[in-house]
Amino acid sequence: MIRVGIFGITGYAGYELARWLERHPAAQVAWAVSESSAGKRLAAVVPGPLDMPLLAAGQADWGAVDVVFTALPHGVAASTARTARAAGVRVVDLSADLRLHTAAAYAQWYGADHPAPELLPTPYGLPELNRAALVDASAIANPGCYPTSVLLGLAPLLKAGIAQLSAPIIVNSASGISGAGRGLKQNLHFVEASENFSAYNIGRTHRHVGEMEQELAALAGAPATVIFAPHLLPVQRGILSTMYVQVQPDLNLATIRDLYAAQYAGEPFVRVLPDGTPAALSYVVHTNRCAIGLTLAQPGLLIVTSAIDNLIKGAAGQAIQNINVMFGLAETLGLR
Amino acid sequence: MIRVGIFGITGYAGYELARWLERHPAAQVAWAVSESSAGKRLAAVVPGPLDMPLLAAGQADWGAVDVVFTALPHGVAASTARTARAAGVRVVDLSADLRLHTAAAYAQWYGADHPAPELLPTPYGLPELNRAALVDASAIANPGCYPTSVLLGLAPLLKAGIAQLSAPIIVNSASGISGAGRGLKQNLHFVEASENFSAYNIGRTHRHVGEMEQELAALAGAPATVIFAPHLLPVQRGILSTMYVQVQPDLNLATIRDLYAAQYAGEPFVRVLPDGTPAALSYVVHTNRCAIGLTLAQPGLLIVTSAIDNLIKGAAGQAIQNINVMFGLAETLGLR
Amino acid sequence: MIRVGIFGITGYAGYELARWLERHPAAQVAWAVSESSAGKRLAAVVPGPLDMPLLAAGQADWGAVDVVFTALPHGVAASTARTARAAGVRVVDLSADLRLHTAAAYAQWYGADHPAPELLPTPYGLPELNRAALVDASAIANPGCYPTSVLLGLAPLLKAGIAQLSAPIIVNSASGISGAGRGLKQNLHFVEASENFSAYNIGRTHRHVGEMEQELAALAGAPATVIFAPHLLPVQRGILSTMYVQVQPDLNLATIRDLYAAQYAGEPFVRVLPDGTPAALSYVVHTNRCAIGLTLAQPGLLIVTSAIDNLIKGAAGQAIQNINVMFGLAETLGLR
Amino acid sequence: MIRVGIFGITGYAGYELARWLERHPAAQVAWAVSESSAGKRLAAVVPGPLDMPLLAAGQADWGAVDVVFTALPHGVAASTARTARAAGVRVVDLSADLRLHTAAAYAQWYGADHPAPELLPTPYGLPELNRAALVDASAIANPGCYPTSVLLGLAPLLKAGIAQLSAPIIVNSASGISGAGRGLKQNLHFVEASENFSAYNIGRTHRHVGEMEQELAALAGAPATVIFAPHLLPVQRGILSTMYVQVQPDLNLATIRDLYAAQYAGEPFVRVLPDGTPAALSYVVHTNRCAIGLTLAQPGLLIVTSAIDNLIKGAAGQAIQNINVMFGLAETLGLR
Repeated sequence: MIRVGIFGITGYAGYELARWLERHPAAQVAWAVSESSAGKRLAAVVPGPLDMPLLAAGQADWGAVDVVFTALPHGVAASTARTARAAGVRVVDLSADLRLHTAAAYAQWYGADHPAPELLPTPYGLPELNRAALVDASAIANPGCYPTSVLLGLAPLLKAGIAQLSAPIIVNSASGISGAGRGLKQNLHFVEASENFSAYNIGRTHRHVGEMEQELAALAGAPATVIFAPHLLPVQRGILSTMYVQVQPDLNLATIRDLYAAQYAGEPFVRVLPDGTPAALSYVVHTNRCAIGLTLAQPGLLIVTSAIDNLIKGAAGQAIQNINVMFGLAETLGLR
Repeated sequence: MIRVGIFGITGYAGYELARWLERHPAAQVAWAVSESSAGKRLAAVVPGPLDMPLLAAGQADWGAVDVVFTALPHGVAASTARTARAAGVRVVDLSADLRLHTAAAYAQWYGADHPAPELLPTPYGLPELNRAALVDASAIANPGCYPTSVLLGLAPLLKAGIAQLSAPIIVNSASGISGAGRGLKQNLHFVEASENFSAYNIGRTHRHVGEMEQELAALAGAPATVIFAPHLLPVQRGILSTMYVQVQPDLNLATIRDLYAAQYAGEPFVRVLPDGTPAALSYVVHTNRCAIGLTLAQPGLLIVTSAIDNLIKGAAGQAIQNINVMFGLAETLGLR
Repeated sequence: MIRVGIFGITGYAGYELARWLERHPAAQVAWAVSESSAGKRLAAVVPGPLDMPLLAAGQADWGAVDVVFTALPHGVAASTARTARAAGVRVVDLSADLRLHTAAAYAQWYGADHPAPELLPTPYGLPELNRAALVDASAIANPGCYPTSVLLGLAPLLKAGIAQLSAPIIVNSASGISGAGRGLKQNLHFVEASENFSAYNIGRTHRHVGEMEQELAALAGAPATVIFAPHLLPVQRGILSTMYVQVQPDLNLATIRDLYAAQYAGEPFVRVLPDGTPAALSYVVHTNRCAIGLTLAQPGLLIVTSAIDNLIKGAAGQAIQNINVMFGLAETLGLR
Repeated sequence: MIRVGIFGITGYAGYELARWLERHPAAQVAWAVSESSAGKRLAAVVPGPLDMPLLAAGQADWGAVDVVFTALPHGVAASTARTARAAGVRVVDLSADLRLHTAAAYAQWYGADHPAPELLPTPYGLPELNRAALVDASAIANPGCYPTSVLLGLAPLLKAGIAQLSAPIIVNSASGISGAGRGLKQNLHFVEASENFSAYNIGRTHRHVGEMEQELAALAGAPATVIFAPHLLPVQRGILSTMYVQVQPDLNLATIRDLYAAQYAGEPFVRVLPDGTPAALSYVVHTNRCAIGLTLAQPGLLIVTSAIDNLIKGAAGQAIQNINVMFGLAETLGLR
């Protein structure tokens, strides 16, 4: 039985982790930290089905766990990861701290010195694309929610070298509101968020652009430029990315689809949809799956739609998938 | 042209007032106060179609207005009303401060000394039930949202003396989330409020119980007891009250319906629904109307359903209806 | 491994059954029937994560299953249950057909002759209240969604004899829209159902009244009268029942709470909430649990709030709980 | 007073027309046709605040009206328009029938012979871009909802010749569910539409592509290619289009914004948002306005966001704006 500690359990990703771990046959939560609510019970803080005591970070018993999940704000997460590593405990970091491979890239996108540069580079925890690097890893950087939908949706194109990277890839995404976190903001008030839809941080300003471009370049073996327009969607959970990619003009849809089928053959959590069926949140919410749709808009212009549940495949589910790989368990364990 | 000042325009009721006054042919907004956002523009604070400068309370030009709406927290509102009256300006108060007729009742339900007891009693601004007292009034207490739905739904029974007031009247209400205000609270976060439904302040603890019982007693000429269970409903606006009233056991539905029809004949904003049609929010949202449904559950037990838009008939629309009465205008002016 | 057949898998309850059975370690779906979509694949009919072939009823292989779930319209379900029993296959019926104990009661509430009266009475499958009758049962009547919330919420009062049954019990319930089924109706169109809230079938006309009164009478050992006002709530899933019960006027809340605590001690799926915390959907959706809140509104008048997920504890989850009991498995198996 | 007839009043656009005409000081509804509900009352068919008798098309009294709105399915609308014109009654057609200027274009995009080719070309009723052609017009083609958001968002670029039309314009749109109409479809059921988000008819297959390209070409004086990905958004109303346009690489944002400001100076219903503020539905829903945001993603790549209320500026409001122009009234009359 893998013994797990959770940092940040009262956030949406941390709570989702705890819900899924309830069902995991080979992992169980030993303790959970919530710095802001230490000393209270979880059920008193989050009105839901779970309950357990909430610890302060200083109360973490490192000897009682094999691995910790750090579902913390960026900056704080890496410091916690450092402490865990020093105690010999493995880490899956759900923040952005360990996703970029260099402190320079971190400084560029996050505007701050990296809090624990000695941990870089950390293996990027997207098992479908990077599985080998995750087996027996001592630390894994859990990918961002938007990047997960984008990378799974584009990887076959870039690995096969059929995307024309001289043109930018346009990524139009919409995320359910849990993606904005549990903190209180005026635009997340029910009355302002419901019956609304809005773009934010569009162009090349959202921090996930750096993460996407790093991983796309690794897949393609060449630089890629992403134009990214995220939108706030009045649903609890789910991300749909609609992506516009220039491809070689003589490619037909069947050829492209075969590439995707080959890339994802045997992957339990990726589904390439039948022709003419774009992705929808309903295919994936409350699951660890990614659904991908392919449409050739005109010769040379492919539209890829990619849907995930931002809290599961985009956060907690993928983190559990990552410990399954890390510890040599069946990758689907606890994720049905 | 009636010149209007609005206190508290960035709240939901204040903003709704401004939206409706845009269309009013005989009233216009001279200025608007937002203490928390003074110096900014309305469009920068509230992402919607309106724009105008926001003043501090101290900048209010009393000479430029004939009447002010005080859409302010209780406690603050009465002080502002006092200042307005001292300046010879009329007031429609949308807070709870002027609704209870005595400082003692205020102290009982609001747990504080009344901030301007010399203004009590103020006429209660429910025109369908109290029109005569509002003509030429210098101040009007705009009713609470829940009480508006309840009083319009029950008045014919109580005026006719057919409710058996020895038993409590059970009022089960659900309110859209704008009723909880624009302030930030965890349970109003989209992710926590959507796909949720919850009761709060149930029994006899909600402050509107005092207001309901005061007015019900006035209608009946005898004390009435209300058991009240409000619920938070994941919609932007609307209140539905489902009320259980003991009536004389030999009454049939036709007789009761005739009472309602007689009470509300000629009322432009009240609609008694056909038999077998309970009230629904869709009948009334975005209007100043109240829809009432009647069902005889068994001999002697009547179920009344009453629906309003909490921001319109439950707040801003009723306030405009009140100035129409106050200034001798057609009561429906600006309210279509 | 228990082999399961599902009738009506494309409905909301049937699909939910299949989702939960995916995770059940001791049961698995052998086949699934959808009369309306026979010959198609499930993924082509319901846009979600599951896929399997859909059979016609006539293709059901009775030798391949140990138990069937009949998630079918009333009338059809009992006929299918009869066929299953004739084939020696056990049945959990999710329709209303087997809930009422006599054909006369069925005729009264459903306006038709009972389709398989020889199956009556069937044990009523609410394990927390009727567990002994379900062990090794060959057929179980899965309770209605509203009655589940009501009976769990009221049982301790009625068993202890402290509800005053000379007065009717008032049950004000709100159900998420999946409770109305997957069939197309104008009032279930997103534009008409969202931002709306409405009562329907209020008084004593809803068919679940008969079921509630049957079971309440069994608990109390005396007749009970229910006044029932269901409402259509703009959420996908969840039922909240707010109930008004006359109790002995000298009882205090602590005494009542102790009764509930004793009744539900050791029950994994029932949670009695702390004082001052009414039930909310967020405590229970996506779980098999029931949350119960208690408030003494005034001496002698208790308000009980009871929340469940209508598709889980109100349908599919309870059905799985029932096969766990029926086959002697741990009752929580597959239901975390 | 302009006397108005409405064909198709029980649809969402027709009903919205009637709601706004209630407030119009110079127009009033003489009669309304609903072929499917003829003989009933409006309030019995649509649960909302309006009521009036519903006629069959054959009962239309042409002598009692000056203009009719045809809010009908395509194909039917043009035939009705022909009848109206033969009776000397003006027409604003809310269907697609009169939007394309030739029968050949209609056949290409709608797959059918045009039902009334003698009415082509009809002036395209987007007053901000085509006002002169609408004054005193006998018939006006009311634009599609998606095209309205797209054309207002792109017009200044195309008129100034700064969009590089050798590249396709990518239009990523999301529409509230009223855009899909009031008819019953599985994907519009509340349970399937809420908490969902999906793309449909993506690429160059949606019929509005033809309409957009016709009008863009007219603005630019050269052909333009549109790649269009519409999405179904779980809100009642509103369209947000996020558009990616290649522009001359040396243009800066200030220059572009000045173009927009000049184009829309004095337009009461178009608002160009401040820098850094993308459009959101909340700026425009329940109004006849369009809000436009501008972002330069990188040199040469502009992102335009454009929001409207699909039922108002995208249908009924624009139709009223069109009769205001047609009859020489103030253009904002009845549209505040």
